[in-house]
Amino acid sequence: MQPLRSVTVVGVGLIGGSIGLALRKRRLAESVVGVGSRSETLATALKLGAITEIATDLKSSVAQAELVVVCAPVSHVADLVRQLAPGCRPGTLITDAGSTKAQIVADVQRAATEPSWNPQVHFVGSHPLAGNEKKGPVHADADLLVGRLVIVTPAAGSRDQDVQAICRFWESLGARTARMSAEEHDVALAATSHLPHLVASALAGATPEGCLNLTASGWLDTTRIAAGDPMLWQQIMLANRENLLASLASFEAQIGQWRQALDAADTAALERLLAAAKRIRDAAGG
Amino acid sequence: MQPLRSVTVVGVGLIGGSIGLALRKRRLAESVVGVGSRSETLATALKLGAITEIATDLKSSVAQAELVVVCAPVSHVADLVRQLAPGCRPGTLITDAGSTKAQIVADVQRAATEPSWNPQVHFVGSHPLAGNEKKGPVHADADLLVGRLVIVTPAAGSRDQDVQAICRFWESLGARTARMSAEEHDVALAATSHLPHLVASALAGATPEGCLNLTASGWLDTTRIAAGDPMLWQQIMLANRENLLASLASFEAQIGQWRQALDAADTAALERLLAAAKRIRDAAGG
Repeated sequence: MQPLRSVTVVGVGLIGGSIGLALRKRRLAESVVGVGSRSETLATALKLGAITEIATDLKSSVAQAELVVVCAPVSHVADLVRQLAPGCRPGTLITDAGSTKAQIVADVQRAATEPSWNPQVHFVGSHPLAGNEKKGPVHADADLLVGRLVIVTPAAGSRDQDVQAICRFWESLGARTARMSAEEHDVALAATSHLPHLVASALAGATPEGCLNLTASGWLDTTRIAAGDPMLWQQIMLANRENLLASLASFEAQIGQWRQALDAADTAALERLLAAAKRIRDAAGG
Repeated sequence: MQPLRSVTVVGVGLIGGSIGLALRKRRLAESVVGVGSRSETLATALKLGAITEIATDLKSSVAQAELVVVCAPVSHVADLVRQLAPGCRPGTLITDAGSTKAQIVADVQRAATEPSWNPQVHFVGSHPLAGNEKKGPVHADADLLVGRLVIVTPAAGSRDQDVQAICRFWESLGARTARMSAEEHDVALAATSHLPHLVASALAGATPEGCLNLTASGWLDTTRIAAGDPMLWQQIMLANRENLLASLASFEAQIGQWRQALDAADTAALERLLAAAKRIRDAAGG
């Protein structure tokens, strides 16, 4: 990617902060303007070098931007895009980092039909698969995206040049990119991210607190993501509710097979289930 | 612990190999005799310095031993102890590293009433909470037990001096120890280890293979232990079947609450469940 004069990051937490640090470290942006709802978070991000200046309001934050990255809780993304688009210069590209895509993309497409939308401003949704259970710019890392996958979700009317530019942006930060529709994204991520969060949380929730001193790496790994932010995850789960319910049904069917094998003390069935799970886990690597 | 002349390790995989390496590194045993069913595994353990000699049969392996540690799949432990006890010198202590305890301890207690048992040989069960999804002596690590918890499970007739000696043995390898009955152990570990393995495996098993390229650290952490050895885990789950079924029932009740909250799109209930899980996960640390 050609270095940019100005990039605006809306929400300078773990992801937004890491994007800012990476842009600065790789000399990909002369200025990184940060904007957000909490002034202490912005001050921390400035101090850590994740942003070069703080904007006091959404409209002024994007006045010089060639690229805007919205890193906000999923239920705020579309509305933030709708509010900031009119303040953008012609040709500005906007993307986001939300963990769900269909609702955001549809809401932004609707906003783009409003009279206030500048038709020379374009949005393409993204989801960097790079979060973890930590939050805030203090955990930001210039290399957070290196080697990670970012899913870019073109909509029906997206221009190919914009989709390419957004892919190049993420790749310039060290990430790999894949394109798929917002709907395909949400079906897949229900199984690979949103269901795991629910399952890890349910497992933590089912653990008697008196036993916590007897946990070891198995429990700790399996429940790690349950430490994530409840507000963020409540929004993600509800934004992808239908797909998550379908993934949960598959999981419950699996659990039913395990209960049946255990109930019957069926050695062969249990070993078959364990072997099938191991095969899938081994295939994923990592 | 005073250095020992001879320790026998039955089964020189990840745990047995790590015990051998630790004994040698800390100069706690002049000789570490390895015995097991696979000659290549024994040869690897010898080459890596986890054992100092290979015994060709169970009886001769323990002839000089002051301490015997049985690191075998849980369904073999009691029978191995029963077979090797008659070959031990008076005063020999035997322990194990099995992930379940009630059945092993009861079976060994029964064996100790047989005429072939040497009444001057004593068994105290142990469970080091230190395994992972890897197996074999190539993954053994002299520091595997450092800082880890080993649960020691005295039986009704255990002599306090033997229980203390077994605790000192594990502590000499860098571990912490806790004592509880075999039954208490199995109830707690069903919740903190055996259920997590089942849940991680069910989650891996419920993941469509076409989506595996869209997994990230959340899925990878949550399913990591599903890569464990199916044969070992089938035995552990069946050896602790009643307690695991009870823990599974608690988990299914939790999952029911999540389904209900999602079905009803109940924001407050979902956030409550997420917050309760986060509180438990945060309390565990790590």
